[in-house]
Amino acid sequence: MRKPIIGVMGGSKASADVYELARELGERIAQQGWILLNGGRNAGVMAASAEGAHLAGGAVIGILPDKTARRSSPHLDIAICTGIGEARNVINVLSSDVVIACPGKLGTRSEVDFALHYKKTVIALQFDLGESYDVYKRRLQLLDAESPREAVELTAAVIAELEDLDSK
Amino acid sequence: MRKPIIGVMGGSKASADVYELARELGERIAQQGWILLNGGRNAGVMAASAEGAHLAGGAVIGILPDKTARRSSPHLDIAICTGIGEARNVINVLSSDVVIACPGKLGTRSEVDFALHYKKTVIALQFDLGESYDVYKRRLQLLDAESPREAVELTAAVIAELEDLDSK
Amino acid sequence: MRKPIIGVMGGSKASADVYELARELGERIAQQGWILLNGGRNAGVMAASAEGAHLAGGAVIGILPDKTARRSSPHLDIAICTGIGEARNVINVLSSDVVIACPGKLGTRSEVDFALHYKKTVIALQFDLGESYDVYKRRLQLLDAESPREAVELTAAVIAELEDLDSK
Amino acid sequence: MRKPIIGVMGGSKASADVYELARELGERIAQQGWILLNGGRNAGVMAASAEGAHLAGGAVIGILPDKTARRSSPHLDIAICTGIGEARNVINVLSSDVVIACPGKLGTRSEVDFALHYKKTVIALQFDLGESYDVYKRRLQLLDAESPREAVELTAAVIAELEDLDSK
Repeated sequence: MRKPIIGVMGGSKASADVYELARELGERIAQQGWILLNGGRNAGVMAASAEGAHLAGGAVIGILPDKTARRSSPHLDIAICTGIGEARNVINVLSSDVVIACPGKLGTRSEVDFALHYKKTVIALQFDLGESYDVYKRRLQLLDAESPREAVELTAAVIAELEDLDSK
Repeated sequence: MRKPIIGVMGGSKASADVYELARELGERIAQQGWILLNGGRNAGVMAASAEGAHLAGGAVIGILPDKTARRSSPHLDIAICTGIGEARNVINVLSSDVVIACPGKLGTRSEVDFALHYKKTVIALQFDLGESYDVYKRRLQLLDAESPREAVELTAAVIAELEDLDSK
Repeated sequence: MRKPIIGVMGGSKASADVYELARELGERIAQQGWILLNGGRNAGVMAASAEGAHLAGGAVIGILPDKTARRSSPHLDIAICTGIGEARNVINVLSSDVVIACPGKLGTRSEVDFALHYKKTVIALQFDLGESYDVYKRRLQLLDAESPREAVELTAAVIAELEDLDSK
Repeated sequence: MRKPIIGVMGGSKASADVYELARELGERIAQQGWILLNGGRNAGVMAASAEGAHLAGGAVIGILPDKTARRSSPHLDIAICTGIGEARNVINVLSSDVVIACPGKLGTRSEVDFALHYKKTVIALQFDLGESYDVYKRRLQLLDAESPREAVELTAAVIAELEDLDSK
C-alpha cells in the first residue's frame, strides 16, 4: 500500500495563530507517517505546514503554480513545478486522499469546492465555510475540527475507511 | 475594441426555472452585441444560455473540459476543446470581462472563487453564495441581480467602466 | 454546421519571409470563411497570421498562455486567456479541425507532435520536420505545402472529408 | 539540498528490449539515490522504469494524466493525479532536473521538445530524434547515451554542474 497523501490547503497569508496551527498540523501529519501535500510556495499555510512536517521527519510534496522552484518552501522534499498557475489547485485535491482546509480565502475555497466535487472528504480546521456548505456536513463529507489533533484523528478515521474499501 | 466577453456560469443540472433564467440571460447578452462564453457542454445552464444567445443571433464560445466536441451544445459557434477537465474553470473566468453566476453547485462556486480571486466583477443571478461572500459585496466586486434584465444592466455598467479604464 | 477552425502554429520569432508567409496564410484562411486559431501573442507567426486574417475580414481566436490579454495581438477577435503557460499548446491543437505548421522551433514541434498524436491532419508549410516524421507522411496524416495557396487547398480537401464523415 | 529528480520519458508501448532498457535505467537511478519521475501509467517505459527503481529501493513519482490512480503503476510511491490529460507532459519536464528520453513516439517527442524549450538537459537513450535536433547536440543540451549506465553517468555530470551553479 502507498502511504496516504494528506492535502493541506489554506491561505498564502497567515496570521501568527494560523501559522502555528498549520505548523502543528504538519508536525502531526508527519508523526502519523503520512505524506503531506500542499501548494508548495514559501508563504502562509503552505510554508507553515511544510515546516512542521519536514522538521518532524515527514515527507512533503509541493505542487507549485510556477515553472520553477524559486519561490518554493525550503522544507519540500519534492517540488512539482506545474507552470499552470492556479489551475494546479485541481491537482492538489485530486492527488490527496483527504483534504484538510486551514483558514484561507478564495484560493482555499476553490480547493474545498473541487475536493467536494470530486467526492473527497474535507476537514475544515478552524475554517467556517458558511451555511451554504451544511449539506456536505450532513452527508459527513465535510467535517469540522477545532484543533490539529482533532483534524488528524478525523483523517485517520477516513483513511481507515478508504483502506477498508480498497481491500474489498 | 474587441467585443466584450461575458462568462455565464451555472450548474450542469438545471431545473425548468433555472433553464429559462439562463436562456433569457443568453438572449439578452446576444441582444447587447456581446459574446457569451460558457463551459460548452450540452447540459444545464451551459445548454440554456448557449441556446438563448444563439437563437437571438449572438456569438457563443464554449470552453469544454473534453478533448473533443462530442458532448458540446449544438448552439456553440466556437468549441474550445481543452482536454484538461475542470481545470478549465480557470480559463472560463480569465477569459471573461464579467462573470454572471446562475444557480449552481461546487463547480460554479469554484468559478466564482477564481473570478473574485482574479479581480473580476461577479454578478450573482438568483444565486445566494452565503454570508461568507458579503465582504466582496461591500467592495462592489460581487453584485446581486434578481432578473436577467438586471444582470445585463449591471454588466453594461461594469463594461462601461472597463472601457473607460482602457481608454485612459 | 460550425465554421471550420484552422489552427496556425509557428515560431514566436519570424523572419520577414516567414512573417509574410504567415500573413498571406491568414488572409487566405479568412477568404475561405474559416476561423483562424493561434497562440494569440503579438509575436512572430501568431501576429502575422492574425493580421492577415483580420484585415481580410476573418475571425481570429487567440489561445494565450497568459492570465491577461496584455501581450495579445491587436488583431484577435477573441482572446482566450488560459493562464496555463505552454500547456495551452494542447488546447491549440485539440480545438483545431486542421493544423497548419509554419516554420518554428520547439514550441511548434510540440504542437505538431500533439496534433499527430490526437489524429489531426497536419500541413507543414515550408517546414521540414525531418525524416523521423516520414511515417506520418506515408499515412497522409502529415502533408507538405510549398505555399499558403497550396496549404489552403490541402486544408479544403481535409475539411471536405471531415464534413463527409460527419454527415454519415 | 533536495534529492535530484530524474524524469524518465518514453513510449506507453515498449518492446521487450525497450522494457528491459527502461527497467535497468530505473534501477540505476535508484542506486544513485535519485528520485525517478515519470508519467505514472502502468504501461511501457513508465511501468518498466517504475518497477526497476522501486524494486531497487528508490522513490518513484508518477504524474498521471488521469483524475484517479486506477491506471497507475503499482510501483509508484507517490501518484500525482492531474486530470489534465497530456497537458501534464509539461509538468513532467518542468519538475525534472534532467530528462532521459527512452524510445517513444509523439508523446515522448513532445516531452523532449518542452524539455529543450525550458532549457533542461535531455539525454536520449537509444532514441534517435533525427537531424533536426543536431543543433541541440552541438550546444550540449541534448546528449546521446547507448546504455542505461552511460545515461546515468551523463546525468551525474549534469547534476554536478547544476549543484555547482546552485552553490554559487
